[in-house]
Formats: sequence, structure tokens, C-alpha cells
Amino acid sequence: MKKLINAPQDAVTDTLRGVAAAHPELTVDVENKVITRSGGATAGKVGLVSGGGSGHEPLHGGFVGFGMLDAACPGEVFTSPVPDQMVQASRAVNGGAGVLHIVKNYTGDVLNFQMAAELVGDDGIEVASVVVNDDVAVQDSLYTAGRRGTGATVFVEKIAGARAEQGGTLAEVASIAREVNERSRSFGVALTPCTTPAAGRPGFELGEDEIELGIGIHGEPGRERVPMRSAREIAEACVLAIHQDMPLDGDLLVMVNGMGGTPQHELYIVFDAVRQTVARTGATIARTLVGNYITSLEMAGCMLTVCRLTPELTALWDAPVQTPALRWGR
Amino acid sequence: MKKLINAPQDAVTDTLRGVAAAHPELTVDVENKVITRSGGATAGKVGLVSGGGSGHEPLHGGFVGFGMLDAACPGEVFTSPVPDQMVQASRAVNGGAGVLHIVKNYTGDVLNFQMAAELVGDDGIEVASVVVNDDVAVQDSLYTAGRRGTGATVFVEKIAGARAEQGGTLAEVASIAREVNERSRSFGVALTPCTTPAAGRPGFELGEDEIELGIGIHGEPGRERVPMRSAREIAEACVLAIHQDMPLDGDLLVMVNGMGGTPQHELYIVFDAVRQTVARTGATIARTLVGNYITSLEMAGCMLTVCRLTPELTALWDAPVQTPALRWGR
Repeated sequence: MKKLINAPQDAVTDTLRGVAAAHPELTVDVENKVITRSGGATAGKVGLVSGGGSGHEPLHGGFVGFGMLDAACPGEVFTSPVPDQMVQASRAVNGGAGVLHIVKNYTGDVLNFQMAAELVGDDGIEVASVVVNDDVAVQDSLYTAGRRGTGATVFVEKIAGARAEQGGTLAEVASIAREVNERSRSFGVALTPCTTPAAGRPGFELGEDEIELGIGIHGEPGRERVPMRSAREIAEACVLAIHQDMPLDGDLLVMVNGMGGTPQHELYIVFDAVRQTVARTGATIARTLVGNYITSLEMAGCMLTVCRLTPELTALWDAPVQTPALRWGR
Repeated sequence: MKKLINAPQDAVTDTLRGVAAAHPELTVDVENKVITRSGGATAGKVGLVSGGGSGHEPLHGGFVGFGMLDAACPGEVFTSPVPDQMVQASRAVNGGAGVLHIVKNYTGDVLNFQMAAELVGDDGIEVASVVVNDDVAVQDSLYTAGRRGTGATVFVEKIAGARAEQGGTLAEVASIAREVNERSRSFGVALTPCTTPAAGRPGFELGEDEIELGIGIHGEPGRERVPMRSAREIAEACVLAIHQDMPLDGDLLVMVNGMGGTPQHELYIVFDAVRQTVARTGATIARTLVGNYITSLEMAGCMLTVCRLTPELTALWDAPVQTPALRWGR
């Protein structure tokens, strides 16, 4: 294992010290592993809290800022954060209008966020939760009952964040978050495995000429292993897997996401191929992200995430955002 | 070789079609391989043109937009663009105030930009050139007489772009570009090699526990191969290599750049370590970039680039920028 780390057990705290130094607009409690916007809670605004295992950066810490999250709780690499982090984050961002927890559907995350919600509720803070479960590849998985939560998390955080910034109530912000999740689907492909610092060796093996369709963001098995194929065929497999689950029509928000070890130019090649396949469904790509937004350490591969937009969702997507990893319009 | 491509010979044009579809604010001539801002030349503004081999994305196409470049000319992967591209780009962005060519110091790029400058000059368009040569690792290299041009290119494009946006003359914009280059230094480290689509196999070999200090952005040899070490030791080696060449003092702009295959969280770990070593020099990190800005396909590793700021350079760095890969302040 060759990684730019000091010691495996320090990987997350060393990362957080770097985040703190690189982004003065964020406040990072390195010891307790909570990232919030500098300046504290916004009075009267619903606070948005997310979190999950580390190793998926920029998710979630890179999405803390105006128009998106108020706080992120990073766990150890590929490991759920603990309820204490979520409680601390929820208290810190409570501006009196309640707190929304955005939870990716992994058993540990779901349980810990539930426990945190109860503890925060005991403080008299109103909490709502949305569980993101957009991955069409598998029903149930190594770490999940039901579908895994993957790329749609980025869409939920952005769109719910915009709704909160506009003064939406907790019920309204939670409702739009659920709507985004319901209208979104993902499908990922791995060309290589990845290695967590603690394990020191790849989580699975792939042959020289083999890829895994339907991979999870922790390297969990997908649908099938197949021989390497062209970007066009891979993009088609992703689009069709989604289209079979949720027929594509109307305006789409499309993300071609790199898993961490894939060059940006390859992601553009995949996007071009996605575009060609989507055109055959009759749907229109109205908004686009191409880059590394939710990663799996150094895994090579990509994930396609699609949201069927409505005029309201499009307007919220376009609303200003100022975070380390996503910024426009302000 | 597993890559998200269709055919090696189509990698750049397929990429450019993806860029065109993902970024409506850019105009992409896919056939002739020229990326410009949509809307054409800005009257009275110096036009900034850069270019170089593909495979370093987001450089240069991702830096076309308000406050930075007016045009980029991507060559084949790791191969200089041809003079025709540069001529077309220069004509397209000439707003009557002349054109600046920003050239990384590789023999092919330098010769082709020289030829293009002569051809454009014959049209009566005034052209100035700045050659970026910030890499302290080696004097002369596989593809270079003198130092290689690497990370400082991002700084030159941003700061000269801001000066042009403010109405600077060609002489003023060229002068600040040269000043940024003179005050900037880089040093890179590779943990793995990378593979161009055309070659189909890695450009060099590195052992299981071996890294290359002073690597070039095309995998050209650096100073030495050493056993793998901690992020702290690697960061120290980078900082000291730069400090020995250009003593660090005052306010610094620091970029910890990923080479393409390194997870974002590792870059933050390196940045944290860089910060600790820089503190011992007495200099201050005033501005920061941590991410993938000038890459080498899927190479794992990082590059440190430092610019010794002046108040003028800081103000120009902070000026608004709106490009696919760098945006703030507007």
C-alpha cells in the first residue's frame, strides 16, 4: 500500500487538520470530527447535517457552506460516524427552525443517525431525516437493507440546502429532499478496487481486463463482472440500468462522477457517451456535473446519477452555492 | 490498460465533445481542437491563450472563462498542440489589445507557440509570450531545455487573467505573468506511473514500495527513487527542495495538487504536513488550493507549487474568476 498518509489511525484527523487550514470559511472540530460553517448557526434557517464514512471526499465536508450543508460528520474511512458527532453537529447548526439529517442508506449510518435524532429531540430540537437510497445496482447489499445511498446524496444536499436558504420550514425542506431522492437513480462501474488505510490491501480483486458493473462506493459487489469494454458501452450500461428502473423523460440533471482514480478527461468521454444514449430515450440533459464529487478513495471507475427535474428542482439546483467543492451564482 | 475511452486515437476528440456538452459557457471547436469562451473576443481586453498536451485536465480547458484564459489549445495526450490551433485561438480571442501566449517549457510547445506567434504577428495582431518554468526538480529533462513548466501555470493563468480583465495592456499583463513565474516554484512526487491511451502501458515502472521524487507531469524522471515514506516526510522533501532554490518568506500562495489518481483526503493530509514544514521557514501560507488542477492522467502522487506573493499578486489572485475548474468572488 502506497498512500499519502502518516499512520492509518491518524488518516482522518490529519485530513481534518488539512481541511481546517485550507478552508478558513469552515470551522473544524478535529478532535470530535465535526465540520461546520464558520459563524455558527443561521437564525431561523433549517440546519442541514450529513455525514458518513471518510474516503468519499469531497462528500460531505466539501459541501458545507452557503446553499448546501450546515455541518458534516466524517467517520473513520468507510465507517459510520458515531451518534455523538451527529448530536454535536445538530446542536451547533440549530437556528431554531429544526435540523434535517441527510443519511445515506447504510445500516450503521441509519442506526447512528436515528439514535442521534432521539438524543437531539430530547433537547427540544425538532429533527427530520431523509434516507438516500438511489443505487439501482442491487437490492440489499453487504452493508445495506434495501438500496445503497450514493450519488443522489449530492443532489439532495444541494437542492434541500437551497430550499433551506430560501426560508423553507423543516417539513418543506425534508419534503423536497425526499422528492429529489425519489426522482434520482445511480449506477456505478469499477475498473480497479481501492484500499482503505486500515486494511492495507485492496477490498477486492479485479482481473487485468475485468470490470465490475454496479459497484458500491465501498467496493461492495455489484451486479456482475464483465470483460473491459468501451466507454460508450459502459455509459450505455449505466444509462439503461437506470432507465429500466426509472424511465427517463423530461429534463434531467446528470452527474458523471469519478470514483477517485479516474482522470477528468475520461469522465468527459463517458459524459459524451451518456449524452448519446440518453438522447435515444427522448429525455433532455438540462444540467450537468462532471468530476469527482462522491469518491471511493483511489478507485478507478465512474458512477452515473440522474435526477428527473421539475421546474422547482431546477430553480433550486441553480440557486447560489458556496462550498469548497461546489460553487456558483453568487 | 483499462481506461474509460472508446479508441486511443479518439480520446481527445471524444473528451472535447464531452467538454462542449458539459459547459455551454464554452465554445469548443472539436475538429480543430480549440476551446474559447462563448461570446467571442472581449473588445479592448488582452486575450490569453494557453495550451499543451492533453491528459493534464482541468489544465488548460478547465481554466477558460472570466478572469482567466480566453482560449485553450489541447494537443493529443502528452503531445504539443500544433501551431494552427494556436493561430486559430489567437485570432478568435483578439479584441484589439493583443494576445498573450502562456507556454509551459517543453521543447515542442515552445517551438509551436513561437511559430504561431510569428504567423499571428503577420496578421497585425500583437503577441507576447511567457514561458513557465517553475519545476525545481531537474535542470533540463527528457522534453525540456531548462526547467519544466508545471503547477505555476495555474497561478500565471489566474493572475495574468485578472490583470487582463482589469484592463491591463499587453505589456502589463505579460509583465505580471513573468513576475508570477519568477516568484513560483514546484516539486512533484509520484507513487505510481501513468499510461497514455496510445502507449497502452505505463511510461515507467515503480516498485511496490518505491516512489519517485521530482517527477515530471509526463512521468519524466525526477531526482531520485526512494523507498515509500510518510506524507510528512514527502511534504518536507517538497518544501525543502523549493526552499533551497527560492528561500520562502512573506506571504505564500500554496497549491497541493493531485496528479490524478490520488484521493482528495490524502491531498489534505499532505497540505497539513506542508503547513507544518513551511511554518519552520518563517513564511506564512496566505492563500491555498488543494485538489486536482494539473494532472498526469491517473498517476498517484502530488505536486507542491508555491508563489511568493506581493500585495498586488494577492489582490489579483483574489479577483473574481468563473471557469469550470476555478471559480470564486462573482
